[in-house]
Amino acid sequence: MKVVGQELPRVEILEKVTGQSVFGADVRLASPLLVGKILGSPHAHARIKSIDTRKAEKLPGVKAVVTARDFPPVKFGRFIQDEEYFARDKVRLVGDKVAAVAAVDEETAEEALRLIKVDYEVLPAVIDGLEAMREDAPLIHEDCERYWAAGLVQGRKGNVLYHKQSLHGDIERGFREADRVFEHRFFAPMVHQTYIEPHTVLARVDASGRATVWIPTQAQFFIRQSIADIFQWPLIKVRVIPTEIGGGFGGKMLPTVEPAAVALAQKSGMPVQIVMSRAEDFQVANPRHPCHMRYKTGVKRDGTIVAREIELVFGTGAFCGNGLVIGQRAEMLATGPYRIPNVKIDLFCVYTNHANCGPYRAPSGPQLAFGSEQQIDIIARELNLDPVEMRLKNAIEEGDTTPAAGGPLKGVHAKETLRKAAEAAAWGAKPREKNRGRGIALGYWLVGGMASSSGVKLNEDGTVSVLTGVVDLSGTVTSLGQIAAEVLGVDLEDVHIRTADSDFAPHSTISAGSQALRSMGTVTKLAAEEVKKQIAEVAADKLEAEAGDLVVEGKRVYVRGTKEKGLSLGQVAQLSLTHKRGPIVSVQSAAQFPNQPAFSVHVADVEVDPETGGVKVLRYIAAQDVGTAINPLSVRGQVQGSVIQGLGQALSEACVFKNGKMLNPTFLDYKIFSSLDAPRVEVHLVQHAAEGGPFGAKGIGEPSIVPVPAAVANAIYDAVGARIFDLPLTPEKILLALQETGKGR
Amino acid sequence: MKVVGQELPRVEILEKVTGQSVFGADVRLASPLLVGKILGSPHAHARIKSIDTRKAEKLPGVKAVVTARDFPPVKFGRFIQDEEYFARDKVRLVGDKVAAVAAVDEETAEEALRLIKVDYEVLPAVIDGLEAMREDAPLIHEDCERYWAAGLVQGRKGNVLYHKQSLHGDIERGFREADRVFEHRFFAPMVHQTYIEPHTVLARVDASGRATVWIPTQAQFFIRQSIADIFQWPLIKVRVIPTEIGGGFGGKMLPTVEPAAVALAQKSGMPVQIVMSRAEDFQVANPRHPCHMRYKTGVKRDGTIVAREIELVFGTGAFCGNGLVIGQRAEMLATGPYRIPNVKIDLFCVYTNHANCGPYRAPSGPQLAFGSEQQIDIIARELNLDPVEMRLKNAIEEGDTTPAAGGPLKGVHAKETLRKAAEAAAWGAKPREKNRGRGIALGYWLVGGMASSSGVKLNEDGTVSVLTGVVDLSGTVTSLGQIAAEVLGVDLEDVHIRTADSDFAPHSTISAGSQALRSMGTVTKLAAEEVKKQIAEVAADKLEAEAGDLVVEGKRVYVRGTKEKGLSLGQVAQLSLTHKRGPIVSVQSAAQFPNQPAFSVHVADVEVDPETGGVKVLRYIAAQDVGTAINPLSVRGQVQGSVIQGLGQALSEACVFKNGKMLNPTFLDYKIFSSLDAPRVEVHLVQHAAEGGPFGAKGIGEPSIVPVPAAVANAIYDAVGARIFDLPLTPEKILLALQETGKGR
Repeated sequence: MKVVGQELPRVEILEKVTGQSVFGADVRLASPLLVGKILGSPHAHARIKSIDTRKAEKLPGVKAVVTARDFPPVKFGRFIQDEEYFARDKVRLVGDKVAAVAAVDEETAEEALRLIKVDYEVLPAVIDGLEAMREDAPLIHEDCERYWAAGLVQGRKGNVLYHKQSLHGDIERGFREADRVFEHRFFAPMVHQTYIEPHTVLARVDASGRATVWIPTQAQFFIRQSIADIFQWPLIKVRVIPTEIGGGFGGKMLPTVEPAAVALAQKSGMPVQIVMSRAEDFQVANPRHPCHMRYKTGVKRDGTIVAREIELVFGTGAFCGNGLVIGQRAEMLATGPYRIPNVKIDLFCVYTNHANCGPYRAPSGPQLAFGSEQQIDIIARELNLDPVEMRLKNAIEEGDTTPAAGGPLKGVHAKETLRKAAEAAAWGAKPREKNRGRGIALGYWLVGGMASSSGVKLNEDGTVSVLTGVVDLSGTVTSLGQIAAEVLGVDLEDVHIRTADSDFAPHSTISAGSQALRSMGTVTKLAAEEVKKQIAEVAADKLEAEAGDLVVEGKRVYVRGTKEKGLSLGQVAQLSLTHKRGPIVSVQSAAQFPNQPAFSVHVADVEVDPETGGVKVLRYIAAQDVGTAINPLSVRGQVQGSVIQGLGQALSEACVFKNGKMLNPTFLDYKIFSSLDAPRVEVHLVQHAAEGGPFGAKGIGEPSIVPVPAAVANAIYDAVGARIFDLPLTPEKILLALQETGKGR
Repeated sequence: MKVVGQELPRVEILEKVTGQSVFGADVRLASPLLVGKILGSPHAHARIKSIDTRKAEKLPGVKAVVTARDFPPVKFGRFIQDEEYFARDKVRLVGDKVAAVAAVDEETAEEALRLIKVDYEVLPAVIDGLEAMREDAPLIHEDCERYWAAGLVQGRKGNVLYHKQSLHGDIERGFREADRVFEHRFFAPMVHQTYIEPHTVLARVDASGRATVWIPTQAQFFIRQSIADIFQWPLIKVRVIPTEIGGGFGGKMLPTVEPAAVALAQKSGMPVQIVMSRAEDFQVANPRHPCHMRYKTGVKRDGTIVAREIELVFGTGAFCGNGLVIGQRAEMLATGPYRIPNVKIDLFCVYTNHANCGPYRAPSGPQLAFGSEQQIDIIARELNLDPVEMRLKNAIEEGDTTPAAGGPLKGVHAKETLRKAAEAAAWGAKPREKNRGRGIALGYWLVGGMASSSGVKLNEDGTVSVLTGVVDLSGTVTSLGQIAAEVLGVDLEDVHIRTADSDFAPHSTISAGSQALRSMGTVTKLAAEEVKKQIAEVAADKLEAEAGDLVVEGKRVYVRGTKEKGLSLGQVAQLSLTHKRGPIVSVQSAAQFPNQPAFSVHVADVEVDPETGGVKVLRYIAAQDVGTAINPLSVRGQVQGSVIQGLGQALSEACVFKNGKMLNPTFLDYKIFSSLDAPRVEVHLVQHAAEGGPFGAKGIGEPSIVPVPAAVANAIYDAVGARIFDLPLTPEKILLALQETGKGR
């Protein structure tokens, strides 16, 4: 292959590094913009007795005020229709939207918010998922069971919006057959995706009532659907124009500020821009679920796992949102990538009085691996087994069927990835310095795919344009360009590809779930292949040959062996335009993408300061099972980014609440890892072309974050013997653990 | 049919009438814009000895100055590569581009233009086509014959850039067999398309060297190609975003200000906007060719035409541009829609020292009809035949082959259209009031087609989006929406269709030549039919039926006879997304469109004031052969617009030059017809579904302007006996003719 597999810079990189790229808040129109602001509830749970907006409406400079009264009285939601955009009778989280204003400037908008009088009757609130499951917990939705729900929703009761029990094999017998049984509880707190760009929108409603919204989003077609649902409009009344996006990580797929801006723009007759503050974004966007985990595992003396019972409680927030994605994912991932004959999983999603949680890079993955992979480490140590050996003994193999993920799975490279990481880390020759330790963890992810279509056109000079609506978060469009270039025998620089908006793009998948490249790559490859077929058909006559005998390569089409006599792709395009089939273009679609497993094994070396509890990550090795790396530069960047983001989750990140209000909604108090904090991350790729991926590619964005917190926790234990069961692994917890084990001062 | 044939308002009408539509000069970006200005030559013909831009470059506020030195030294041109964007050694028209500047404001830009010193050696110039053909005329291109030219270019010599002689039958014998031979010379001057919006551009060049231009254009893919040619770039380095367009009429298909703006944007690193003044646009854009005509016609005593010899000399301007379009068109149209066994046509296109002329609504049509149809009128009167009868006797019929247009022609409704107009006008019962008269003329046009592609997608809620790059000048996209709606069994309001830019649109035809609807309608219909097929395939399984037994209608798909059991299109879209083929979408292409003839017969009633020579048009009847009227409201609007525009050409419009400089480049001195000047235009449609048109549609934009000047000229003669051989039919000429015939004072 000539283009696929090459380390090529991203196609939009020059605009990015010169600051020319237009992100959400950069969008301007020819006409003046109004500033929109949203009034959020100060209470985590309260009944709304009245909302008085009259004073705000009268304030000079205020052009529109909207509340629930301006919206159709319908609930929306992809899994459960439990949400209204503006709170009508009740608020269910701090920041729950009560009203919004559009004014000529920010000061006026803020003054208008202050003038809106809302009379609340405060109700008891519940933030923790386990507490919310108690019989005496305040009920967040009184009539939850009457809401419309998708077919997969089950077990609704009280604050529980989803409970699924999965049984595989015979769990009782499994534990009876075990030589040892281990049971631990773990907790992963709410963390936030901390994309650098907060949610922002510019909305305009034109004379014919069509809304156009410019937003940084991972899912332009989802957002279009949500806005249409909320306003009860047909989809063609909504145009979503995706801007460049400053990160998403799963947090930019649901409407946040968009419907408010649309309603304000419609009411005021002017374009309205809303830019969330960092604090607002922390408080009300869709962060990661806090998760209580109980892992009970039965093993034979030789380390063979024979039974695993898992209980997971996810605090979902005030509304379901995309939260059930985690239900599906967690069930598939709960056991880890291990052969376990007897399994019981109880999975609960519970309403709680905070923002509705949603996907965050590998939803449920880092949490479950934090539990599962620490427990594997504990068991290995108890049984005097090497942690790598213990994992090799139990890891799934080609053709295995796992309890919840189904199968038979193809492209299973768990063991090779384990060995590659161990070898790269010189696992067997571990240095033994005081307060230093090494941890390993095995993560996996199931890469699916979603309905996608993509177009390819041959321009009149033989260059190629790709027509696609997928948003580029991580180099996806560059890789799509490489795929089209490879099929059509041109260079990447001969291909143009950027993201079209929802009006003009064929329906494209979301940029999430590690499946964008797989889904869009598959249909882009199909479209390029169809274009290649058309090229050969058009050229066949002229070259007096059968289309099947033609080669499309080196920007030309020719009869095999007579390249100099062929036609350039530009000549073919012209010929087709004037004399043959017209413009050469094709759009292709696909819907079905069986799960591909992708494995990541991380080895972390840390040093713990026993005086302060501080952890320093000295070295980090990540082995990644990627199928074919379409662009290894991009793949390595994704793995390195994942690790750095995962280190934040491991060591410092957590949303801290008091009465439902986040206490640390700034980057001063909520500490993410930056490149300054990060160790060098060595990336090792395991490459075997995967069935069902374009040119054999697997997904990469998510698998590589899964093992990070577990690997670091295992390394800390290895360094100083402190076992921490709840994230993040802060100095305080480490010091406390050292004190408890008598190792501390 | 439920949607095709309905009188529906244009889909963008609310934005237009509320002033929300964004036209060229309305475009703004988030970053500040520079103002671009172009320095044109004050001489019609001169050698450039030197250009000194140093003072201009030093003027504070000037950000870039460009000349030919900033461009690759290559000539461009679609038919003949005879043009450089900026003059390098020689200027060939007043306004020939010599340099351009970009500055922070208009005053600074104008001051900078004044500071550019150009040293010219003035050369003799020639403006008139016949004069340019003389042996002793100054040579405008010294090495014309060495320029690259397309295959159809022939007969280059001196200032003649094209001479084609066409012989059909035996012209000598034809004249020998004639009972009477008539010979007349006619002249139609240069007129301008006088679109309300002058040429304008906003250009930006991004960090990776890609240019984006926002322009009102009829031909986004042509302009993209031209810019790429001029800069010697691949097409994917140029993105053309068509804005709303304030008229084109053939005059917005060649680059005018675009390359200057691109070069200035590239050099300054900032976006540059250039808005032509009305005077500049009159002087240097691409107006209609002035045309000298000689018609020599031999007839039998009964009015049968037996021979016609035609000589046409088109003043093409300083460069060929799109000028040869007129050569092809004029040859096809020269004889008129008549059966003539013996024909000789000599057609000359000649370089002249004015702007290069190009297409203007029905290129060559109104000019040739002015000659041909007046002569038919003269002959009928001489032979004492009724003008309608004379035309009916000679008009072509179904299956006829005409000398230059070929055939056999299908859908020939010349006679029916003649009879419809005569009947509507009560031709036989003509009133006889003093100084009032009635004239008739028969026009025709051959509607072809150009390479096109168009896409249709079914949205997730069953609404439909059409993906197209064709620019909407006259309701085309509304009609395309009607076509898609008809095929898919939905209403027009369920369809979204606007114009995508060159990056994201499938290659689409130009909005010119009356073929946009035919070309794009054909491929849109194909794409909608493919989508309909996909809908049936997806639904077939669910409905347990054969796809062939399903009906797609009323926004549903169902087994014939069981509508209530079917699926909504939204359900089908969802089903396909999640379980079947993925997004339902199709892009289809076509290239070949055989000529369709379209006929227009106009009857004008006028009153001539013998004191002033002033003409008042009292009533105007237009019968139009349209095939199927997709949207009769739109068709009637097109015909009425054509007539009003044609009345200006008939009665008042001409570009007047002195030493190559236009003397009347304002709407005060160049008088176009407005709705206030216009009579009521009665439109009568002749509808027979035409083979090869979508749902049987024929083109409409151009045919309906062809007969206007001839009909008015014939009416003036009928009123007061004044026969005018050169346009426009001004009071001065009428008074002079009346004096010559002794009827004047």
